[in-house]
Amino acid sequence: MLNRHLLNVSGGSRHLQTPALVVDLEKLRTNLDRMQARCEHHTHVLRPHTKTHKCVAIAKLQVERGAVGICCAKLSEAEAMSRGGLENILVTSPVVTDEGIRRAISLSRTTKELILTIDNKSVARLTDAMAKSAQTELNVIMDIDPGMHRTGIPLGDEGLSLAHALKQDCPSLRFRGVQFYSGDLMHVLDYSVRRNRYLARSERLWAFLRELHEMGIDTEIVTGGGTGSYEFDFESDVMTELQAGSYAFMDRQYLEIESGSGGTLEFDPSLFVFTTVVSSNHSHMATTDAGLKSFATDDKTPLIVDGAPRESHYSFMGDEHGAIHWAIDDCKLDVGSLVSTVVPHCDPTINLYNELHVIHRDKLVDIWPIEARGHTQ
Amino acid sequence: MLNRHLLNVSGGSRHLQTPALVVDLEKLRTNLDRMQARCEHHTHVLRPHTKTHKCVAIAKLQVERGAVGICCAKLSEAEAMSRGGLENILVTSPVVTDEGIRRAISLSRTTKELILTIDNKSVARLTDAMAKSAQTELNVIMDIDPGMHRTGIPLGDEGLSLAHALKQDCPSLRFRGVQFYSGDLMHVLDYSVRRNRYLARSERLWAFLRELHEMGIDTEIVTGGGTGSYEFDFESDVMTELQAGSYAFMDRQYLEIESGSGGTLEFDPSLFVFTTVVSSNHSHMATTDAGLKSFATDDKTPLIVDGAPRESHYSFMGDEHGAIHWAIDDCKLDVGSLVSTVVPHCDPTINLYNELHVIHRDKLVDIWPIEARGHTQ
Repeated sequence: MLNRHLLNVSGGSRHLQTPALVVDLEKLRTNLDRMQARCEHHTHVLRPHTKTHKCVAIAKLQVERGAVGICCAKLSEAEAMSRGGLENILVTSPVVTDEGIRRAISLSRTTKELILTIDNKSVARLTDAMAKSAQTELNVIMDIDPGMHRTGIPLGDEGLSLAHALKQDCPSLRFRGVQFYSGDLMHVLDYSVRRNRYLARSERLWAFLRELHEMGIDTEIVTGGGTGSYEFDFESDVMTELQAGSYAFMDRQYLEIESGSGGTLEFDPSLFVFTTVVSSNHSHMATTDAGLKSFATDDKTPLIVDGAPRESHYSFMGDEHGAIHWAIDDCKLDVGSLVSTVVPHCDPTINLYNELHVIHRDKLVDIWPIEARGHTQ
Repeated sequence: MLNRHLLNVSGGSRHLQTPALVVDLEKLRTNLDRMQARCEHHTHVLRPHTKTHKCVAIAKLQVERGAVGICCAKLSEAEAMSRGGLENILVTSPVVTDEGIRRAISLSRTTKELILTIDNKSVARLTDAMAKSAQTELNVIMDIDPGMHRTGIPLGDEGLSLAHALKQDCPSLRFRGVQFYSGDLMHVLDYSVRRNRYLARSERLWAFLRELHEMGIDTEIVTGGGTGSYEFDFESDVMTELQAGSYAFMDRQYLEIESGSGGTLEFDPSLFVFTTVVSSNHSHMATTDAGLKSFATDDKTPLIVDGAPRESHYSFMGDEHGAIHWAIDDCKLDVGSLVSTVVPHCDPTINLYNELHVIHRDKLVDIWPIEARGHTQ
């Protein structure tokens, strides 16, 4: 493994073979502590979403601090986390194929408290029938569409009907509650706009849960929320547990949204990609070794935080290279110099790397495998 | 490993756990045969770029057909290919750090014909000194900037001076020739525009090589070109070898560029991502299990080729999900149904997957590891 020889060497963090995904251990711990404390203060349970980090070591840090369990995006992510020793796992995307349900049943036998999400009556019946024939029970929650039309059953009659079916017609499924995740609101920049839209949706969820209650269906778990909404989740109090993930690392997207105080959110960037200048034959620019294969490209470009002239910006130069551009004249970046960047969007960027380099001050202190990288199935 | 149980099962290719990266073996072989035949007809050497597929099995199919060797984008990709048994490897990006050069020297001892690229005098001197002190020689070619300013030394005096330094002042480096890669022209849609710009650059390279020759420096290797330029490389005849890669698979980008006949290029898509519908609660759309973690997002969206209503289009719905949209009314996609897509940009998309599912008609016939996935260092 590259970079292993630098472990615990003084100044070693400046000599990584790059592109390298790097986490600052102190900043990571501060972020984890802060969110855990916020949740406990508001008597909410924290169930961090591991689709952000995909890393058993970090999931364990979260559970050690008091997280009730974890979320996984897909079944293969849950399989990887379970192999790493994690328990109480909620799979937030529906599992819909025969083979997927068979895998879920198998995973439920080795994982204490596995919970699936369902948003469709025919999938509910299929899952119930397969659990019955495997002589087991599966925990399920109903996924509700908050209005973004990604997954989830609409609120209203369709939602009530599916809840009724899950509760009454599926004896091999244990109905535990609902999921309500507003992914489309998390990155709304303006605080008031984000808050107003989110609280309006929360009100609709409150009304729906009252209707369910009147039908005799209670919801032990109401799960959702994220790094962009946790303050409003405390305020609305409709959730019993929070699914935040990005707060552990932060990224350029989340650094740009406004908090209640008018500044940035209370979490600091702990995640970086280190890249090296590999060509420097032109004025006002240099070429690095990190391109489209080293950063997610769905939104912004990387934010340069160290190692380049002030006010430099980053652009992509194809699969393998990036460029650093600056305006000032009397400046050149030497070939071989190291540049540190905050990643544009943490989840899909981390998904590109096999290892996370853990640094403390100027030392590389650990290299954590990203066990669930590529586990999208 | 997921999907292993489907190997050689009739109809197995329709039951993959998804998102799954899939190659059609017959179409792949046809593409490989066709480019090899074109190169041989024009007495050019083919040195396919393995940054496209990152897969030892495919590199071996290319060498079996007559490829002289391979290109690798980065040293870690070359290390992976060498471990897989490949030889005659050109690393197309500069290797510039002490540790990188140390790795290159180590790799050169176990790989017949490793060739490095250099675009900078100080890196040339460092590499020469390290090779000397390791009591070895390294093959190098000089990387020339065709005008895109990514890597490479400018043509003209700077280029002549670096060539002179490599040839005369670096006794532990064996100067083999030049690299000239016009990545910025490969996807120019219009055939005549692409051809005119490319041939103008080729003329400048011809002139430079004549100047080098007059200085007493001959170039055994002149390497470059790609899937978007191979016809012009034959026409100009300045290259001795071609670095094409994407022709093996094709992608949406390359399907959109115009060939000399006015239609598409003569290679057919052989690479697909299979995805499954996981939610279908709304009209005119369905949600799939393939999002930002399953496709490169630097350019177009995936092109739907099978399994969805006619004229459907794909959009991203976050890290884990995609959406299929259509205009016709009397249509619904069932949860669990399989949809096949041509990928937007093959290289960074393949970089997201650990395995390539090899299909022949309706059977899964092999699963190839993508050994150099994530090898960007």
